[in-house]
Amino acid sequence: MTSLANRKVILSKRPDGIAQAEHFEIVDRTDPAPAAGEVRIEIMFLSVEPAMRGWIADTGNYSEPVALGSVMRALAVGRIVESCADAHSKGDVVMGWFGWQEQAVVPASAIIRTVTETDLSPSLALGVLGINGITAYLAMTEIGRPGPGDTVVVSTAAGSVGSAAGQVAKILGARTIGITGSPRKVAQCLEHFNYDAAIDYKSGHLPRSLADACPDGLNVYYDNTAGEVSDSVYPLLANGARIVVCGTAAIPQWSPWPSGPRIERHLLVKRASMQGFVIFDHMERWHEAVSQLADWIRAGQLRYVEDVLDGIEACPHAIAGLYRGENTGKRIIRLA
Amino acid sequence: MTSLANRKVILSKRPDGIAQAEHFEIVDRTDPAPAAGEVRIEIMFLSVEPAMRGWIADTGNYSEPVALGSVMRALAVGRIVESCADAHSKGDVVMGWFGWQEQAVVPASAIIRTVTETDLSPSLALGVLGINGITAYLAMTEIGRPGPGDTVVVSTAAGSVGSAAGQVAKILGARTIGITGSPRKVAQCLEHFNYDAAIDYKSGHLPRSLADACPDGLNVYYDNTAGEVSDSVYPLLANGARIVVCGTAAIPQWSPWPSGPRIERHLLVKRASMQGFVIFDHMERWHEAVSQLADWIRAGQLRYVEDVLDGIEACPHAIAGLYRGENTGKRIIRLA
Repeated sequence: MTSLANRKVILSKRPDGIAQAEHFEIVDRTDPAPAAGEVRIEIMFLSVEPAMRGWIADTGNYSEPVALGSVMRALAVGRIVESCADAHSKGDVVMGWFGWQEQAVVPASAIIRTVTETDLSPSLALGVLGINGITAYLAMTEIGRPGPGDTVVVSTAAGSVGSAAGQVAKILGARTIGITGSPRKVAQCLEHFNYDAAIDYKSGHLPRSLADACPDGLNVYYDNTAGEVSDSVYPLLANGARIVVCGTAAIPQWSPWPSGPRIERHLLVKRASMQGFVIFDHMERWHEAVSQLADWIRAGQLRYVEDVLDGIEACPHAIAGLYRGENTGKRIIRLA
Repeated sequence: MTSLANRKVILSKRPDGIAQAEHFEIVDRTDPAPAAGEVRIEIMFLSVEPAMRGWIADTGNYSEPVALGSVMRALAVGRIVESCADAHSKGDVVMGWFGWQEQAVVPASAIIRTVTETDLSPSLALGVLGINGITAYLAMTEIGRPGPGDTVVVSTAAGSVGSAAGQVAKILGARTIGITGSPRKVAQCLEHFNYDAAIDYKSGHLPRSLADACPDGLNVYYDNTAGEVSDSVYPLLANGARIVVCGTAAIPQWSPWPSGPRIERHLLVKRASMQGFVIFDHMERWHEAVSQLADWIRAGQLRYVEDVLDGIEACPHAIAGLYRGENTGKRIIRLA
């Protein structure tokens, strides 16, 4: 019955390209009390992700663009402080579409899952146990299907999706090659994420380094980038290779539509397949994915890195920083 | 124990592009008698196919290039006149890799199948009951998987693969749209091959005509062309669409490698898949395919067109004519 003030990050201008701090505004707005079927959540961690560029963009995409003047769409994890929804209790830790704000009053349908792995940090529900890790696990197991004897190449190999994808392939018995963007990340791939080899694509020798690392071609390409990195990978596909199209981070915008070397011939000659993966088509498998990933974390087989910013003031410039590559690991914002 | 003279078409020069008459030579060569495990075949029909461009090309492909000075690689159908192979008898009609020649002495391993559908013309074993029809049937059912409610687009829709692919999709309950290259072929698609709609891509209105024909997007794209035709199709993919990559007839050569609009974003946003199909990976399903296709032919549900040239003299210029689009239907050469 009470209503509380809290700070929210509003999309105030639509960017032409990547969102910068100037495209957001932090406002103080009072929420109403939760109505029937709603909950009030005190948010602990906010997520920052590359996909936000797409959520903000005005062009056709797989979700409606965030409306100007509304709270920035974001996944978040928090604790329910007031519940008018039958299936949720005060005190539950939940992850869902709560937006970039300190408190959220949302319908229960905004909750994606209740965080039950209470022995692990709730922040993981935004990273390795959130859409990043779940995407990596499901896309790798559904489309990539690596196994012993397979060579798997991952782009943005040190990123929050890529690092999980590479480790899942390794756990499943494959040899893993990471492509990443700095000598520091190459070292991280090798030392932290257990890749068998890692290549800095900015070295200028990507095609040759890839050919050296994949003498028999590659069986799975887990792609988060498209662009020139992928163009170097396609000619090395082995017969029957599977390409997981999980992101296009190397393409800053799709208007005008960019061109690149045609891929049809590679797919035909190598009888290869290429498939797009969007995590929200597979929510019925989230529970299985979280449970498997959490077990691997507990067993020390699956490692992750978090890049933690503090306070809601960090939100407006957090997306641009991601695209400048200033983060190491999954970028999250810790509140309170 | 006898040896017979017969005419053979030899690859005498390697073309830079599409093979013309000047790249071949017709010679008279005496075959030895078949050795143990070999058969002598009197050839009835020779096949001419677009894929021959690839078999002749010097660049990496999914088969070794035809050696200069050797008989042009070709599928053919003929009757065994002398057998030194246990599994084959004199009088059997067989289809296989017998080359462009009037008689062939080949190991039994060159035989792909014995033609048992004796109520139908043996020439069909090179077309609708050969790699064209079998490719269409297997690629459509394995990768395209169309069903009632689906919209299926086929490129080179009036060709020997395309026309079978379109009709298979139609028989399986889908709505079918053919893309072809002349008003005459549009009429053939509609009247003969049972397409629900057909578009002449040379009309200059392909993107608009396709959008009109696919108001809810398309679920399956059976592609024999790549190139600009495909570039008009990709933006119209429906969620979960399947693209069968069966040929790249619109690309005259892959050196230098051609560019086109990037496809990754379409695949990602539409959760679509794209897969190359090479018929020789699926020989264990040929019998099933031939049996199903022959039944549909007998029932009047599956129609075909043959483009018959007479005599081995027709071989040297037959490939170039195919690329000029002068044929209607599957091009074959009838001997004797």
